[in-house]
Amino acid sequence: MHTVTLKLVTIIAEPVLEERLTRALHALGARGWTITACRGEGSRGMRVGEVPGDGIRIESVVSAPVADRILELAAREYFPHYAVIAWLTDVHVVRGDKYV
Amino acid sequence: MHTVTLKLVTIIAEPVLEERLTRALHALGARGWTITACRGEGSRGMRVGEVPGDGIRIESVVSAPVADRILELAAREYFPHYAVIAWLTDVHVVRGDKYV
Amino acid sequence: MHTVTLKLVTIIAEPVLEERLTRALHALGARGWTITACRGEGSRGMRVGEVPGDGIRIESVVSAPVADRILELAAREYFPHYAVIAWLTDVHVVRGDKYV
Repeated sequence: MHTVTLKLVTIIAEPVLEERLTRALHALGARGWTITACRGEGSRGMRVGEVPGDGIRIESVVSAPVADRILELAAREYFPHYAVIAWLTDVHVVRGDKYV
Repeated sequence: MHTVTLKLVTIIAEPVLEERLTRALHALGARGWTITACRGEGSRGMRVGEVPGDGIRIESVVSAPVADRILELAAREYFPHYAVIAWLTDVHVVRGDKYV
Repeated sequence: MHTVTLKLVTIIAEPVLEERLTRALHALGARGWTITACRGEGSRGMRVGEVPGDGIRIESVVSAPVADRILELAAREYFPHYAVIAWLTDVHVVRGDKYV
């Protein structure tokens, strides 16, 4: 099966940020996303147990340049102020043109 | 720790497809799967906002040939008709023989 | 965007193991984790359909040595006794120092 390598962006954030984050994803070039409810404990720079609570997990398959722009935005506007974490994973899809 | 590289297949689909998809996964060689409830917006070929709604996220760790067969099936029978997306990720497991 | 490659550990387990597993993650060096409710069918060494039921999906972004210790623990203490599966994925993060 012929596949194309793209980036899966995963963002874990407080539910209150959902609309703002998905608007940003759209503006930066994401064609869609999936949201899953989750719970988290600990995170960037905090001690485990300090910030437990409900969260959302946002996932979006995007091109490498779009992934880069999303991480840049997260680092600049979210990491300093919110308990947001984000990571990229290489994923392989068929019909890669649908995601970009 | 000695690990073996396998493929994680992730499929996002409408909940109505769950039984049909998991039967297909089994028939194609998957030994098990995990299902998580999610919500999605946008997707393959659709504009963001066009098809919001509940979804399921099906994940299964399988061998590369099984992953290939699952993607082929998805591309042939699901992508043309349903708001299904699927991707493969390389994952590392211990006791890889349990998954194949 | 400058990124650092770390390991995402994903563990699927019975909900009853949550506290024990997250305590172990913490003790082995994880700085935080995310928990998502899921359902599973089949798994390590079992036939599909044999052990359906509710589960939890625990995810944690950690350094490679911590990931290795977590897999070793899982293989030694959990795989022989519980329907636990676990896998590692390479992920790319900004500000990698926050996770280690």
